[in-house]
Amino acid sequence: MPGSGVGAMDEWQLLERIARTVPKAGDDCAVLPWGGSYLVLSMDMLHRDADFPLGTTPYTIGWRSVAVSLSDVAAMGARPLLVLLGLSAPSLDTSFVDEVLSGAQACCRQAGGELSGGDLDTSQELFLTSCALGECAQPILRQGARVGDLLCVSGPLGATARAMELLSTGQHDEANTLLRFVPRTELGPKLVHQATCMIDISDGLAHSVHLLAKASRVGFRIYAHRIPWIDGLHTPALDYGEDFELLFTISEQAFHPDFGTVIGETVPHGITIVQTDGERPLQNRGYNHGG
Amino acid sequence: MPGSGVGAMDEWQLLERIARTVPKAGDDCAVLPWGGSYLVLSMDMLHRDADFPLGTTPYTIGWRSVAVSLSDVAAMGARPLLVLLGLSAPSLDTSFVDEVLSGAQACCRQAGGELSGGDLDTSQELFLTSCALGECAQPILRQGARVGDLLCVSGPLGATARAMELLSTGQHDEANTLLRFVPRTELGPKLVHQATCMIDISDGLAHSVHLLAKASRVGFRIYAHRIPWIDGLHTPALDYGEDFELLFTISEQAFHPDFGTVIGETVPHGITIVQTDGERPLQNRGYNHGG
Repeated sequence: MPGSGVGAMDEWQLLERIARTVPKAGDDCAVLPWGGSYLVLSMDMLHRDADFPLGTTPYTIGWRSVAVSLSDVAAMGARPLLVLLGLSAPSLDTSFVDEVLSGAQACCRQAGGELSGGDLDTSQELFLTSCALGECAQPILRQGARVGDLLCVSGPLGATARAMELLSTGQHDEANTLLRFVPRTELGPKLVHQATCMIDISDGLAHSVHLLAKASRVGFRIYAHRIPWIDGLHTPALDYGEDFELLFTISEQAFHPDFGTVIGETVPHGITIVQTDGERPLQNRGYNHGG
Repeated sequence: MPGSGVGAMDEWQLLERIARTVPKAGDDCAVLPWGGSYLVLSMDMLHRDADFPLGTTPYTIGWRSVAVSLSDVAAMGARPLLVLLGLSAPSLDTSFVDEVLSGAQACCRQAGGELSGGDLDTSQELFLTSCALGECAQPILRQGARVGDLLCVSGPLGATARAMELLSTGQHDEANTLLRFVPRTELGPKLVHQATCMIDISDGLAHSVHLLAKASRVGFRIYAHRIPWIDGLHTPALDYGEDFELLFTISEQAFHPDFGTVIGETVPHGITIVQTDGERPLQNRGYNHGG
């Protein structure tokens, strides 16, 4: 961690601490019962160093900035209503801002939710914050998995890892296309009353599985050969983050192939991965912004 | 503007441009009709250089970070429901984060709205984003002032300017107390169906008056001697920002002294200030983050 002082904690430790201070902070969104349904509200901060490697276009930056919050909304089983985008940059260059907004609006058009405002500022580093408001009949939380439930992902993993590979070899266009993921806002609401728990994989599969296990007080067994990886990925990694597919549990009866791919099952305790050489514990590693 | 490139615009120009691209971005909050009432959603970004001068305590930083978004909610005539706070700092020092959260929670307790989550990250510069969700029977917009309406402020101006004076002379405690303003979330909802237009004074009185005039297509005449200034302020300034009192128009019949102080009136066109030496145009100057 850069410049860490006495008492500095990594992001995950601190998030746990905050979850104790702020009771509702333990899920992908804050939840508010409202008029017979539920409102969900999510915020994400992204900045140049951690989230936008060299080669990421302004259009992609705008797209991805709102996509991460829309993904949180989808992970609650909600449909998006409103999106706000805050942009702070060393220079408020007109064409840069236009392209960021254009990318953000294109993502909202595809995923739902209307870009309806935000904030603008100048700062040393490029910094974006998005906030998405959504609505659902019943939120799907991280807790709720039952022993015997299937563990599923909504699509192939490794898109961001593959994009990094492409950027490193100068294939910027293909990389940017991959970085502009479509949040699973269409699938999310379909899983209400179906999925028993859910999260989006923003910090790597391994870490997300651990978060579901902890919240649901269960264990998981994952089958390595069942994990779908994106085409062309050279080094599949369980602990590489920012995939934004949904990870959820569901009963065998409720599962439908349109929902995604079954990669494992819910067990009473222990988080393990079954590979060709046997079953071993799945370590809680992943992308940690504070680490 | 630091590092401004070709085509760079100041923040106000760019906000006008964005308001044309993003149709709903022209008010203090985004507005969504919802189940017979209205939801409003606001976002504000604050960072070390522009918003937290040396001497501002972490507790005050947390307080003020959520207070600015709650003030936006109040400016729509809404009551706050949920607040999110995003914090990004060079180091996630435990005691620093605890104090920021403590200040944010204290402000929410006083102003309403529950601190319900957010995001956490590390970055070169201290950066905070808050987002507040509110609800109102009918939003009070920037448009709606009618010729003859009174122009009012909800309380004395110059608190931030006075805090800067105090910080410059080492009176940190008194400065921090002033910086921890209480958003007008109690008054805001009382003005629904009373005020004809409203804004919070986040960029100076002069600029806020100009924004109301433009949105409402009217003019204003302000009487300098009626503007209430905070005790002890050495240099009252119409164009010094970040006061966060409400500025609103209201008919003479609907006005009640509990609402604040009448400082002027709505006229067909022209924005002027009446001083002891006569009436002159009130320039559109104020605190501009991008300038």
